[in-house]
Amino acid sequence: MTISVGIQGASGYTGAELVRILTAHPEVDIVFVTSERYAGQPMGKIFPHLLLRDDLICHPLQDLSRLSDCQVVFCALPHVTSMKIVPELLRHDLKVIDLSADFRLRDPEVYQEWYKTPHLAPEWLSEAVYGLPELYREKIKNAKLVANPGCYPTSVILALAPLLAKGGLIDPETIVIDSKSGVSGAGRSPTEGNLFAELAEGFRPYGTGFHRHTPEMEQILGDHSGQRVRIRFAPHLIPQSRGMLSTCHVRPLERAVEKQGIDWQNLFEEFYRDEHFVRVLKPGMLPATNHVRSSNYAHVSVVEDRRTGWLTLLCAIDNLVKGAAGQAVQNMNILFGLDEKTGLTQLPVFP
Amino acid sequence: MTISVGIQGASGYTGAELVRILTAHPEVDIVFVTSERYAGQPMGKIFPHLLLRDDLICHPLQDLSRLSDCQVVFCALPHVTSMKIVPELLRHDLKVIDLSADFRLRDPEVYQEWYKTPHLAPEWLSEAVYGLPELYREKIKNAKLVANPGCYPTSVILALAPLLAKGGLIDPETIVIDSKSGVSGAGRSPTEGNLFAELAEGFRPYGTGFHRHTPEMEQILGDHSGQRVRIRFAPHLIPQSRGMLSTCHVRPLERAVEKQGIDWQNLFEEFYRDEHFVRVLKPGMLPATNHVRSSNYAHVSVVEDRRTGWLTLLCAIDNLVKGAAGQAVQNMNILFGLDEKTGLTQLPVFP
Amino acid sequence: MTISVGIQGASGYTGAELVRILTAHPEVDIVFVTSERYAGQPMGKIFPHLLLRDDLICHPLQDLSRLSDCQVVFCALPHVTSMKIVPELLRHDLKVIDLSADFRLRDPEVYQEWYKTPHLAPEWLSEAVYGLPELYREKIKNAKLVANPGCYPTSVILALAPLLAKGGLIDPETIVIDSKSGVSGAGRSPTEGNLFAELAEGFRPYGTGFHRHTPEMEQILGDHSGQRVRIRFAPHLIPQSRGMLSTCHVRPLERAVEKQGIDWQNLFEEFYRDEHFVRVLKPGMLPATNHVRSSNYAHVSVVEDRRTGWLTLLCAIDNLVKGAAGQAVQNMNILFGLDEKTGLTQLPVFP
Amino acid sequence: MTISVGIQGASGYTGAELVRILTAHPEVDIVFVTSERYAGQPMGKIFPHLLLRDDLICHPLQDLSRLSDCQVVFCALPHVTSMKIVPELLRHDLKVIDLSADFRLRDPEVYQEWYKTPHLAPEWLSEAVYGLPELYREKIKNAKLVANPGCYPTSVILALAPLLAKGGLIDPETIVIDSKSGVSGAGRSPTEGNLFAELAEGFRPYGTGFHRHTPEMEQILGDHSGQRVRIRFAPHLIPQSRGMLSTCHVRPLERAVEKQGIDWQNLFEEFYRDEHFVRVLKPGMLPATNHVRSSNYAHVSVVEDRRTGWLTLLCAIDNLVKGAAGQAVQNMNILFGLDEKTGLTQLPVFP
Repeated sequence: MTISVGIQGASGYTGAELVRILTAHPEVDIVFVTSERYAGQPMGKIFPHLLLRDDLICHPLQDLSRLSDCQVVFCALPHVTSMKIVPELLRHDLKVIDLSADFRLRDPEVYQEWYKTPHLAPEWLSEAVYGLPELYREKIKNAKLVANPGCYPTSVILALAPLLAKGGLIDPETIVIDSKSGVSGAGRSPTEGNLFAELAEGFRPYGTGFHRHTPEMEQILGDHSGQRVRIRFAPHLIPQSRGMLSTCHVRPLERAVEKQGIDWQNLFEEFYRDEHFVRVLKPGMLPATNHVRSSNYAHVSVVEDRRTGWLTLLCAIDNLVKGAAGQAVQNMNILFGLDEKTGLTQLPVFP
Repeated sequence: MTISVGIQGASGYTGAELVRILTAHPEVDIVFVTSERYAGQPMGKIFPHLLLRDDLICHPLQDLSRLSDCQVVFCALPHVTSMKIVPELLRHDLKVIDLSADFRLRDPEVYQEWYKTPHLAPEWLSEAVYGLPELYREKIKNAKLVANPGCYPTSVILALAPLLAKGGLIDPETIVIDSKSGVSGAGRSPTEGNLFAELAEGFRPYGTGFHRHTPEMEQILGDHSGQRVRIRFAPHLIPQSRGMLSTCHVRPLERAVEKQGIDWQNLFEEFYRDEHFVRVLKPGMLPATNHVRSSNYAHVSVVEDRRTGWLTLLCAIDNLVKGAAGQAVQNMNILFGLDEKTGLTQLPVFP
Repeated sequence: MTISVGIQGASGYTGAELVRILTAHPEVDIVFVTSERYAGQPMGKIFPHLLLRDDLICHPLQDLSRLSDCQVVFCALPHVTSMKIVPELLRHDLKVIDLSADFRLRDPEVYQEWYKTPHLAPEWLSEAVYGLPELYREKIKNAKLVANPGCYPTSVILALAPLLAKGGLIDPETIVIDSKSGVSGAGRSPTEGNLFAELAEGFRPYGTGFHRHTPEMEQILGDHSGQRVRIRFAPHLIPQSRGMLSTCHVRPLERAVEKQGIDWQNLFEEFYRDEHFVRVLKPGMLPATNHVRSSNYAHVSVVEDRRTGWLTLLCAIDNLVKGAAGQAVQNMNILFGLDEKTGLTQLPVFP
Repeated sequence: MTISVGIQGASGYTGAELVRILTAHPEVDIVFVTSERYAGQPMGKIFPHLLLRDDLICHPLQDLSRLSDCQVVFCALPHVTSMKIVPELLRHDLKVIDLSADFRLRDPEVYQEWYKTPHLAPEWLSEAVYGLPELYREKIKNAKLVANPGCYPTSVILALAPLLAKGGLIDPETIVIDSKSGVSGAGRSPTEGNLFAELAEGFRPYGTGFHRHTPEMEQILGDHSGQRVRIRFAPHLIPQSRGMLSTCHVRPLERAVEKQGIDWQNLFEEFYRDEHFVRVLKPGMLPATNHVRSSNYAHVSVVEDRRTGWLTLLCAIDNLVKGAAGQAVQNMNILFGLDEKTGLTQLPVFP
């Protein structure tokens, strides 16, 4: 079986990562790539590490001539641009995996509130399936449009899902999420703030209290737990290219804890028992971004603060892989009935 | 006026930083330095950036022959080692500024609980003054022994002090502190965990839930607020040499907020109005570790999450300066009646 | 076909890299790993990025009980240790790929001169084949013992081989080699010099004029060119974990240049026309270590200084892959008659 | 004595560094700063590390209204922009220290050849004094216009000057210079090539064979030695913000060496005996960029390759200090008859 694939937006870091991962995928043929800025140029000129894919020449973004050769298109475009193009793609007989934020929120009004622009394709919002396989595998199988999760939400939802799977364990209104991301998450467009000299030795917060991934996390965690979830979300920028780590602080409900004497470690291990890509670390180990780098694996730890009873949930992922391109390929495998792990089992690169 | 100074433990990063800062201090003469590992060697061989201080040859740690020439001794030794030596120093007619954790906790039992060893000089605990000038300036003036604060506590207490100065504003039992430190905080002793290749691209948590700075923060914040303070503390390691940033998440008490319509920004600006080294950033700016690097300044921000009402307090310092050696020199200035800023007003080095 | 493989010294960076690469190799089964320091421990505890290989438990170095199950053993041990063990391995019916320096030099006296210790297995020196496939592919096919090249020599020989393939083009006595290596090349043993805080923002030379890879380069380049080659070699340490770049400055012989009007770019492209892993960059592009990271590819450029006529040859590799573990696997593929590229075509990880 | 100073181009890294250094200078008052992009904004908004200099508001570049208050103006502008403005400044009764390349080359034709634009103020070229105090101190004293050296030339000339001070020691036609620079040298204008994610783990060469600092080095080294000097120059970019290290490979003339039995170490120590800012390292030590960081010191080593007789000269500086702003202030001190070291003796910041 060979899946014919197109990639919209191949000149960003996520697009390049899709090319890298799909090149190693045994059942995939990349039939076209597009780029607005680099139309006409081969991949190896845009990204020298992709020199061996100089056979791929970027088409203009709007050139849909090769769509009929594709079974699935990955959209690695900025938000807004994505919702302009995705509906057009969907009119062809193919599946779309969208890596932007445009189809993740169910409610167009919430979208407008956070993204400051009206949604242009609200009719597709109910159709889109949130592409976190660990929670929505069954729905993804039959999706036509997969909304690939944001990197922060992936790390946060994987850290919290076991606790929220059934109600009554933790207080869903006092969750504090302190996340840290490598710089590649900000994309490849040059800005002063992303220059090497501005960031080296320069750990810093940004968007404290109003980052756009907030409603996405609340929606999915709310759905998953069956109750309203409210988070405080503080993202930070780490002086490294790749990697994301979320530290989630939650208060267990006393009642639950006392009655049930919960073994948190066991709760997590059980929840992820059958998941290949989520590894619950043994007590004594803690996640680190360079232990999952360039891989689709997530490392998760649960730590109980014996003095205060609060829990700290930690999850490390590679923001460009499990947080973007790798998870998108995982979704593609599900969509086409392949073993979900196909092409994604390369171990992390360390050091 | 020239103050004669000795430095115990000059071959660690903090000791070297003391030499660097004191060399530029117009009223100081370093009369001796010691090192256990490098006795007999000049500073420039131990630290090539201190080449110009090759006049300083390290004495053995136990060599107290030059104590009588000193008016003040800085102890930059590991904990336990420090409490063995400090009482001996204090028997001479001089002042001691101790940069270890040994004299920060008031209660020897708390010390034993967290440091897993009995305190060897409990009689000095009540004598020691906690050397955070912004809170304890008056007491420091007449101290014989100053317990220089830890780096984490410095960043956290500066972030929270304005809120806790009077009770009733925030819930003192649900404070979540998520701190991030550069690697130099771990010292210069070689361990696998501190190797370059282990840490580059490798943001990670450590000691989650049981870091030893926890009781220090609770003690000082409790004293300051006049009520019991309980924190959840999660420290992390950043892939950079210097710099520390603490992100503190607190819940304002509704009653207080509603009644008083508090202007948090103003509260902070007022609290630090007369402090030279603590700069409250204007709304729209957020602290970054490389904006205070190599300086004694702390950058502080207060951000209100309008959705949840919680506050995020951010404080960036250089862990080796305001978090250690610089603050120690600030304390020395106070002890000797100098302008507190003397020798400490060099602007941060950026980029 | 499944090749049964053993790895001696799996707890160093090179050993871990062998585990990573061989795990993804479709024709390999790792049957045992050893470690002196970590005997009895699973790989995932020694290296958390290898969590999924917790099935591999480190045997003691001297435990040869599983040798009879192996067809090939990789030795990723320090020099001297290696030459003690390799002869013992070779007494079994298997092939050995040694990644240390112990079997690279033909002459035991040269070995003794540079490594300051007599060679313990000189009888094997003539037997060993230098494992640089681009130059010695045919010999490797039938080797019993492959001496895997050093990382510096790999980058330098690949940069210079086209020029030295026939005599008379460049002056073999005035070659200047200025190399730069990531920190992982120094191994995982903790030393003060390899601490993060010592190296960040800290580019530096080391071993100027007497690095042990010097005679290895002169021997191979001399063999290859059929004349005596003399190099000046200055290695440097870059503040990054992986990656190596060698800048080679050579003087073309005027006679050759004038008579023949040589097209250097073409010379290089022709020389490497059939080599998959060596990519000669087009004019206008220059190699960078992060464009080959974690891959077995080498990027090579040739630049002519039009003012002086000198050539600058540049070669970037990943020191742990093409400079060590990847090249060793390439050699294994050749030894066992597999397609040389098997398991090694993963594209570089960028950014 | 207070010198009134203006800074043209205060929003680049060099301009900010001038503000940082001059703020700590005991005899200087900064009376105006300008910026094209940030006119009207306070320094602390452009550079948060300069928060304490919010009293300085950037004027537009062309606003010369405050010139009459100045005794000296530092021009930290891009080349071409500088030669448009400097002549205008010089018409006022003040001195100018220009940090661009515009007045370093004596010959306007050489300028045009390398900078691809005709020189706009050739009448000032003979007037300008090259501002390397270690070679031209006497001339600087009476200069009206100082052409502050480039960062690469500073590091290279300091490394080679002792050898070239008298002819006959080394071959001036086969000098190979392999230099490495931190990223801040490329300035603060956002380009894709200077993004954090492009450079981390990404050591690379650039401009091999045609960097514009080449003729500057040849001119000064030629003047200094009294003979034609020809260099091969290969610059590289290091993944760090600050710091520069040049590795110079030269061939001693056999005759000289044999006859005189030269002690190279002694030659260097003698040459720099009275220089405060150039430190010749003892044998066994080698320079590193982080041992001079943020300071005006240069660390120099001379290493003889006993096998080949060639010498390797190494020089580390901070590209923004001794390579730019610090050296400019050193020149200012000379121009105004101050102790040359005034305001420049802060020790390097390490780690």
